[in-house]
Amino acid sequence: MTMTMTMTMGAALLKRILCRPAPPLAIFFRSSFSSYTTPEATRLLKVGDVLRESRRFSESDVARYSEVSGDRNPVHLDADFARRIAGFDGGRVVHGMLVASLFPSVIASHFPGAVYIAQTLKFKLPVYIEDEVVAEVQATHVRENKKRYIVKFATKCFVDKKSLVLDGEATAILPTLALNK
Amino acid sequence: MTMTMTMTMGAALLKRILCRPAPPLAIFFRSSFSSYTTPEATRLLKVGDVLRESRRFSESDVARYSEVSGDRNPVHLDADFARRIAGFDGGRVVHGMLVASLFPSVIASHFPGAVYIAQTLKFKLPVYIEDEVVAEVQATHVRENKKRYIVKFATKCFVDKKSLVLDGEATAILPTLALNK
Repeated sequence: MTMTMTMTMGAALLKRILCRPAPPLAIFFRSSFSSYTTPEATRLLKVGDVLRESRRFSESDVARYSEVSGDRNPVHLDADFARRIAGFDGGRVVHGMLVASLFPSVIASHFPGAVYIAQTLKFKLPVYIEDEVVAEVQATHVRENKKRYIVKFATKCFVDKKSLVLDGEATAILPTLALNK
Repeated sequence: MTMTMTMTMGAALLKRILCRPAPPLAIFFRSSFSSYTTPEATRLLKVGDVLRESRRFSESDVARYSEVSGDRNPVHLDADFARRIAGFDGGRVVHGMLVASLFPSVIASHFPGAVYIAQTLKFKLPVYIEDEVVAEVQATHVRENKKRYIVKFATKCFVDKKSLVLDGEATAILPTLALNK
Protein backbone atom coordinates (compact mmCIF):
# COMPACT_ATOMS: atom_id res chain seq x y z
CA MET A 1 0.00 0.00 0.00
CA THR A 2 1.55 3.29 -1.04
CA MET A 3 1.40 6.48 0.94
CA THR A 4 -0.68 7.98 -1.89
CA MET A 5 -3.28 5.27 -1.47
CA THR A 6 -3.40 5.81 2.25
CA MET A 7 -3.91 9.52 1.67
CA THR A 8 -6.87 8.76 -0.57
CA MET A 9 -8.35 6.34 1.93
CA GLY A 10 -8.33 8.65 4.87
CA ALA A 11 -8.76 11.81 2.78
CA ALA A 12 -11.73 13.19 4.72
CA LEU A 13 -10.11 12.61 8.08
CA LEU A 14 -6.76 13.96 6.88
CA LYS A 15 -8.39 17.10 5.46
CA ARG A 16 -10.28 17.68 8.70
CA ILE A 17 -7.10 17.48 10.75
CA LEU A 18 -4.65 19.18 8.41
CA CYS A 19 -6.95 22.17 7.80
CA ARG A 20 -6.72 23.10 11.48
CA PRO A 21 -3.90 25.50 12.34
CA ALA A 22 -1.10 23.61 14.08
CA PRO A 23 -0.93 24.61 17.75
CA PRO A 24 2.35 25.66 19.32
CA LEU A 25 4.47 22.59 19.92
CA ALA A 26 4.66 23.25 23.64
CA ILE A 27 0.93 22.67 24.03
CA PHE A 28 1.38 18.98 23.33
CA PHE A 29 3.75 18.71 26.26
CA ARG A 30 1.25 20.22 28.66
CA SER A 31 -0.99 17.19 28.34
CA SER A 32 -1.25 15.32 31.60
CA PHE A 33 -0.48 12.19 29.58
CA SER A 34 2.97 13.40 28.57
CA SER A 35 6.09 12.84 30.59
CA TYR A 36 7.71 16.20 29.97
CA THR A 37 11.27 16.01 28.67
CA THR A 38 13.74 18.84 28.90
CA PRO A 39 14.60 20.56 25.60
CA GLU A 40 18.12 19.09 25.80
CA ALA A 41 16.66 15.58 25.84
CA THR A 42 14.24 16.09 22.94
CA ARG A 43 14.79 13.53 20.20
CA LEU A 44 13.01 13.60 16.84
CA LEU A 45 11.50 10.46 15.31
CA LYS A 46 13.22 9.42 12.09
CA VAL A 47 12.81 6.58 9.59
CA GLY A 48 14.20 3.36 11.08
CA ASP A 49 13.43 4.24 14.72
CA VAL A 50 11.72 1.46 16.68
CA LEU A 51 9.33 2.02 19.61
CA ARG A 52 8.64 -0.99 21.83
CA GLU A 53 6.27 -2.03 24.58
CA SER A 54 5.87 -5.39 26.29
CA ARG A 55 2.74 -6.74 27.91
CA ARG A 56 1.25 -9.90 29.35
CA PHE A 57 -2.54 -10.10 28.99
CA SER A 58 -4.17 -11.64 32.06
CA GLU A 59 -7.44 -13.56 32.40
CA SER A 60 -8.89 -10.38 33.86
CA ASP A 61 -7.74 -8.31 30.86
CA VAL A 62 -9.42 -10.73 28.46
CA ALA A 63 -12.62 -10.79 30.54
CA ARG A 64 -12.73 -6.98 30.74
CA TYR A 65 -12.04 -6.63 27.00
CA SER A 66 -14.85 -9.13 26.25
CA GLU A 67 -17.22 -6.97 28.28
CA VAL A 68 -16.33 -3.65 26.69
CA SER A 69 -16.04 -4.95 23.10
CA GLY A 70 -18.96 -7.37 23.29
CA ASP A 71 -16.77 -10.07 21.70
CA ARG A 72 -17.62 -13.21 23.70
CA ASN A 73 -16.20 -15.75 21.28
CA PRO A 74 -15.63 -18.89 23.40
CA VAL A 75 -12.07 -19.26 22.04
CA HIS A 76 -11.29 -16.34 24.38
CA LEU A 77 -13.36 -17.33 27.41
CA ASP A 78 -13.62 -21.12 27.55
CA ALA A 79 -10.32 -23.03 27.81
CA ASP A 80 -11.95 -26.37 27.05
CA PHE A 81 -13.64 -25.01 23.92
CA ALA A 82 -10.40 -23.31 22.83
CA ARG A 83 -8.42 -26.56 23.23
CA ARG A 84 -10.82 -29.26 22.12
CA ILE A 85 -12.94 -27.52 19.54
CA ALA A 86 -10.78 -24.79 18.08
CA GLY A 87 -7.46 -26.63 18.45
CA PHE A 88 -5.60 -24.01 20.48
CA ASP A 89 -3.20 -26.12 22.56
CA GLY A 90 -2.48 -23.28 24.99
CA GLY A 91 -6.14 -22.79 25.92
CA ARG A 92 -7.82 -19.39 25.93
CA VAL A 93 -6.58 -17.05 23.21
CA VAL A 94 -6.23 -13.29 23.71
CA HIS A 95 -8.51 -11.33 21.34
CA GLY A 96 -6.50 -10.37 18.25
CA MET A 97 -7.83 -6.82 18.36
CA LEU A 98 -6.70 -6.48 21.99
CA VAL A 99 -3.18 -7.53 20.99
CA ALA A 100 -3.37 -5.10 18.04
CA SER A 101 -4.36 -2.28 20.42
CA LEU A 102 -0.71 -2.27 21.52
CA PHE A 103 0.21 -0.46 18.28
CA PRO A 104 -1.86 2.74 18.76
CA SER A 105 -1.07 2.51 22.47
CA VAL A 106 2.70 2.58 21.81
CA ILE A 107 2.35 5.40 19.27
CA ALA A 108 0.09 7.51 21.51
CA SER A 109 2.34 7.04 24.53
CA HIS A 110 5.19 8.64 22.59
CA PHE A 111 3.03 11.10 20.63
CA PRO A 112 -0.04 12.21 22.61
CA GLY A 113 -2.60 13.57 20.12
CA ALA A 114 -1.63 11.10 17.37
CA VAL A 115 -4.54 10.27 15.07
CA TYR A 116 -4.83 6.85 13.43
CA ILE A 117 -5.54 6.73 9.70
CA ALA A 118 -4.99 3.11 8.71
CA GLN A 119 -3.89 -0.28 10.04
CA THR A 120 -3.42 -3.68 8.41
CA LEU A 121 -3.28 -6.80 10.57
CA LYS A 122 -2.18 -10.34 9.75
CA PHE A 123 -2.77 -12.71 12.66
CA LYS A 124 -0.07 -15.36 12.28
CA LEU A 125 -0.07 -17.31 15.54
CA PRO A 126 -2.32 -17.34 18.60
CA VAL A 127 -1.42 -15.28 21.68
CA TYR A 128 -2.32 -17.09 24.92
CA ILE A 129 -3.14 -15.58 28.28
CA GLU A 130 0.05 -14.59 30.15
CA ASP A 131 2.27 -14.91 27.03
CA GLU A 132 4.94 -12.21 27.00
CA VAL A 133 4.06 -10.04 23.99
CA VAL A 134 6.48 -7.44 22.64
CA ALA A 135 4.96 -4.88 20.25
CA GLU A 136 7.38 -3.16 17.88
CA VAL A 137 6.48 -0.10 15.85
CA GLN A 138 9.11 1.02 13.33
CA ALA A 139 8.84 4.28 11.34
CA THR A 140 9.17 3.53 7.61
CA HIS A 141 8.00 6.81 6.00
CA VAL A 142 7.76 10.34 7.41
CA ARG A 143 6.16 13.19 5.49
CA GLU A 144 5.46 16.72 6.72
CA ASN A 145 2.18 18.35 5.77
CA LYS A 146 1.11 21.73 7.19
CA LYS A 147 3.19 21.39 10.37
CA ARG A 148 1.92 17.92 11.07
CA TYR A 149 3.51 14.60 10.14
CA ILE A 150 2.06 11.65 8.28
CA VAL A 151 4.03 8.65 9.45
CA LYS A 152 3.85 5.07 8.27
CA PHE A 153 4.96 2.34 10.68
CA ALA A 154 5.76 -1.36 10.30
CA THR A 155 3.89 -2.93 13.22
CA LYS A 156 4.82 -6.34 14.65
CA CYS A 157 4.14 -8.36 17.79
CA PHE A 158 6.40 -11.16 19.00
CA VAL A 159 5.86 -13.78 21.70
CA ASP A 160 8.86 -14.92 23.75
CA LYS A 161 10.99 -12.46 21.75
CA LYS A 162 11.13 -14.74 18.70
CA SER A 163 7.76 -15.84 17.27
CA LEU A 164 6.07 -13.28 15.03
CA VAL A 165 2.40 -13.49 16.02
CA LEU A 166 0.99 -10.31 14.46
CA ASP A 167 2.26 -8.32 11.49
CA GLY A 168 1.04 -5.27 9.62
CA GLU A 169 1.35 -1.57 8.90
CA ALA A 170 -0.10 1.55 10.49
CA THR A 171 -0.42 5.13 9.28
CA ALA A 172 -0.90 7.95 11.77
CA ILE A 173 -0.86 11.75 11.81
CA LEU A 174 1.50 13.00 14.51
CA PRO A 175 1.35 16.53 15.95
CA THR A 176 5.14 16.57 16.32
CA LEU A 177 8.13 14.29 15.71
CA ALA A 178 9.50 15.05 19.19
CA LEU A 179 9.43 11.87 21.26
CA ASN A 180 7.95 12.61 24.66
CA LYS A 181 9.58 9.71 26.50
CA MET B 1 -5.43 -8.55 -1.45
CA THR B 2 -6.21 -11.90 -2.97
CA MET B 3 -7.32 -14.96 -1.04
CA THR B 4 -4.01 -16.60 -2.02
CA MET B 5 -2.09 -13.80 -0.35
CA THR B 6 -4.19 -14.12 2.76
CA MET B 7 -3.45 -17.83 2.87
CA THR B 8 0.26 -17.08 2.73
CA MET B 9 0.02 -14.44 5.43
CA GLY B 10 -1.74 -16.55 7.99
CA ALA B 11 -0.26 -19.84 6.74
CA ALA B 12 1.02 -21.03 10.12
CA LEU B 13 -2.23 -20.23 11.89
CA LEU B 14 -4.31 -21.73 9.07
CA LYS B 15 -2.25 -24.93 9.07
CA ARG B 16 -2.58 -25.25 12.84
CA ILE B 17 -6.36 -24.98 12.66
CA LEU B 18 -7.06 -26.86 9.45
CA CYS B 19 -4.97 -29.88 10.50
CA ARG B 20 -7.30 -30.56 13.43
CA PRO B 21 -10.17 -32.90 12.66
CA ALA B 22 -13.43 -30.96 12.33
CA PRO B 23 -15.70 -31.62 15.32
CA PRO B 24 -19.34 -32.63 14.85
CA LEU B 25 -21.35 -29.56 13.87
CA ALA B 26 -23.67 -29.95 16.85
CA ILE B 27 -20.84 -29.21 19.28
CA PHE B 28 -20.73 -25.63 18.13
CA PHE B 29 -24.34 -25.19 19.07
CA ARG B 30 -23.78 -26.39 22.59
CA SER B 31 -21.70 -23.33 23.38
CA SER B 32 -23.30 -21.16 26.02
CA PHE B 33 -22.64 -18.23 23.70
CA SER B 34 -24.91 -19.57 20.96
CA SER B 35 -28.60 -18.88 20.74
CA TYR B 36 -29.67 -22.32 19.56
CA THR B 37 -31.75 -22.35 16.40
CA THR B 38 -33.97 -25.23 15.41
CA PRO B 39 -32.77 -27.31 12.44
CA GLU B 40 -35.68 -25.95 10.40
CA ALA B 41 -34.44 -22.41 10.94
CA THR B 42 -30.77 -23.11 10.10
CA ARG B 43 -29.54 -20.79 7.37
CA LEU B 44 -26.14 -21.07 5.71
CA LEU B 45 -23.96 -18.03 5.11
CA LYS B 46 -23.48 -17.25 1.43
CA VAL B 47 -21.63 -14.58 -0.57
CA GLY B 48 -23.54 -11.31 -0.38
CA ASP B 49 -25.05 -11.92 3.08
CA VAL B 50 -24.71 -8.96 5.48
CA LEU B 51 -24.49 -9.27 9.27
CA ARG B 52 -25.13 -6.10 11.27
CA GLU B 53 -24.77 -4.82 14.81
CA SER B 54 -25.35 -1.34 16.18
CA ARG B 55 -23.70 0.18 19.22
CA ARG B 56 -23.23 3.48 21.03
CA PHE B 57 -19.94 3.72 22.90
CA SER B 58 -20.35 5.51 26.22
CA GLU B 59 -17.84 7.52 28.26
CA SER B 60 -17.58 4.49 30.52
CA ASP B 61 -16.82 2.18 27.56
CA VAL B 62 -14.02 4.48 26.41
CA ALA B 63 -12.60 4.75 29.94
CA ARG B 64 -12.72 0.97 30.43
CA TYR B 65 -11.13 0.35 27.03
CA SER B 66 -8.35 2.83 27.85
CA GLU B 67 -7.64 0.88 31.02
CA VAL B 68 -7.52 -2.56 29.46
CA SER B 69 -5.65 -1.53 26.29
CA GLY B 70 -3.34 0.97 27.96
CA ASP B 71 -4.13 3.51 25.19
CA ARG B 72 -4.53 6.79 27.11
CA ASN B 73 -4.23 9.14 24.11
CA PRO B 74 -5.85 12.41 25.29
CA VAL B 75 -7.97 12.59 22.10
CA HIS B 76 -10.03 9.82 23.77
CA LEU B 77 -10.06 11.08 27.36
CA ASP B 78 -9.85 14.87 27.36
CA ALA B 79 -12.65 16.72 25.53
CA ASP B 80 -10.81 20.03 25.62
CA PHE B 81 -7.64 18.51 24.13
CA ALA B 82 -9.71 16.66 21.50
CA ARG B 83 -11.50 19.88 20.46
CA ARG B 84 -8.84 22.56 20.76
CA ILE B 85 -5.65 20.70 20.00
CA ALA B 86 -6.61 17.81 17.77
CA GLY B 87 -9.51 19.60 16.02
CA PHE B 88 -12.24 17.08 16.76
CA ASP B 89 -15.37 19.25 16.92
CA GLY B 90 -17.41 16.58 18.70
CA GLY B 91 -14.95 16.25 21.59
CA ARG B 92 -13.66 12.90 22.81
CA VAL B 93 -13.16 10.34 20.05
CA VAL B 94 -13.81 6.63 20.52
CA HIS B 95 -10.62 4.56 20.05
CA GLY B 96 -10.50 3.33 16.44
CA MET B 97 -9.56 -0.18 17.54
CA LEU B 98 -12.58 -0.28 19.87
CA VAL B 99 -14.86 0.62 16.95
CA ALA B 100 -13.04 -2.00 14.84
CA SER B 101 -13.68 -4.62 17.54
CA LEU B 102 -17.29 -4.65 16.33
CA PHE B 103 -16.21 -6.70 13.28
CA PRO B 104 -14.87 -9.80 15.10
CA SER B 105 -17.65 -9.33 17.64
CA VAL B 106 -20.35 -9.52 14.92
CA ILE B 107 -18.66 -12.51 13.27
CA ALA B 108 -18.16 -14.41 16.55
CA SER B 109 -21.73 -13.77 17.68
CA HIS B 110 -22.98 -15.55 14.56
CA PHE B 111 -20.14 -18.11 14.39
CA PRO B 112 -18.80 -19.02 17.85
CA GLY B 113 -15.32 -20.47 17.40
CA ALA B 114 -14.45 -18.24 14.42
CA VAL B 115 -10.73 -17.50 14.17
CA TYR B 116 -9.47 -14.21 12.76
CA ILE B 117 -6.71 -14.36 10.13
CA ALA B 118 -6.52 -10.81 8.77
CA GLN B 119 -8.11 -7.36 8.96
CA THR B 120 -7.47 -4.10 7.14
CA LEU B 121 -8.77 -0.84 8.60
CA LYS B 122 -9.11 2.62 7.03
CA PHE B 123 -10.26 5.19 9.58
CA LYS B 124 -12.17 7.74 7.53
CA LEU B 125 -14.01 9.93 10.04
CA PRO B 126 -13.95 10.21 13.83
CA VAL B 127 -16.52 8.36 15.95
CA TYR B 128 -17.61 10.42 18.97
CA ILE B 129 -18.92 9.16 22.29
CA GLU B 130 -22.63 8.22 22.03
CA ASP B 131 -22.63 8.27 18.20
CA GLU B 132 -24.86 5.53 16.81
CA VAL B 133 -22.44 3.17 15.04
CA VAL B 134 -23.68 0.43 12.73
CA ALA B 135 -21.13 -2.26 11.84
CA GLU B 136 -21.79 -4.18 8.63
CA VAL B 137 -19.93 -7.35 7.72
CA GLN B 138 -20.64 -8.70 4.22
CA ALA B 139 -19.36 -12.08 2.99
CA THR B 140 -17.45 -11.61 -0.29
CA HIS B 141 -15.65 -14.97 -0.69
CA VAL B 142 -16.34 -18.39 0.84
CA ARG B 143 -13.99 -21.34 0.41
CA GLU B 144 -14.23 -24.75 2.05
CA ASN B 145 -11.03 -26.38 3.30
CA LYS B 146 -11.10 -29.62 5.31
CA LYS B 147 -14.61 -29.11 6.66
CA ARG B 148 -13.87 -25.55 7.74
CA TYR B 149 -14.56 -22.35 5.83
CA ILE B 150 -12.21 -19.51 4.94
CA VAL B 151 -14.45 -16.49 4.53
CA LYS B 152 -13.53 -12.99 3.43
CA PHE B 153 -15.77 -10.13 4.55
CA ALA B 154 -16.11 -6.48 3.53
CA THR B 155 -16.24 -4.66 6.88
CA LYS B 156 -17.74 -1.19 7.27
CA CYS B 157 -18.96 1.06 10.07
CA PHE B 158 -21.44 3.88 9.56
CA VAL B 159 -22.50 6.69 11.86
CA ASP B 160 -26.10 7.91 11.71
CA LYS B 161 -26.76 5.29 9.03
CA LYS B 162 -25.05 7.33 6.31
CA SER B 163 -21.45 8.39 7.04
CA LEU B 164 -18.82 5.72 6.36
CA VAL B 165 -16.41 6.09 9.28
CA LEU B 166 -14.42 2.84 9.04
CA ASP B 167 -13.78 0.63 6.03
CA GLY B 168 -11.76 -2.52 5.43
CA GLU B 169 -11.71 -6.27 4.93
CA ALA B 170 -11.51 -9.24 7.26
CA THR B 171 -10.63 -12.89 6.71
CA ALA B 172 -11.74 -15.51 9.22
CA ILE B 173 -11.89 -19.30 9.51
CA LEU B 174 -15.40 -20.40 10.42
CA PRO B 175 -16.20 -23.81 11.92
CA THR B 176 -19.51 -23.92 10.04
CA LEU B 177 -21.52 -21.74 7.66
CA ALA B 178 -24.68 -22.28 9.73
CA LEU B 179 -25.77 -18.98 11.23
CA ASN B 180 -26.55 -19.45 14.90
CA LYS B 181 -28.89 -16.48 15.23
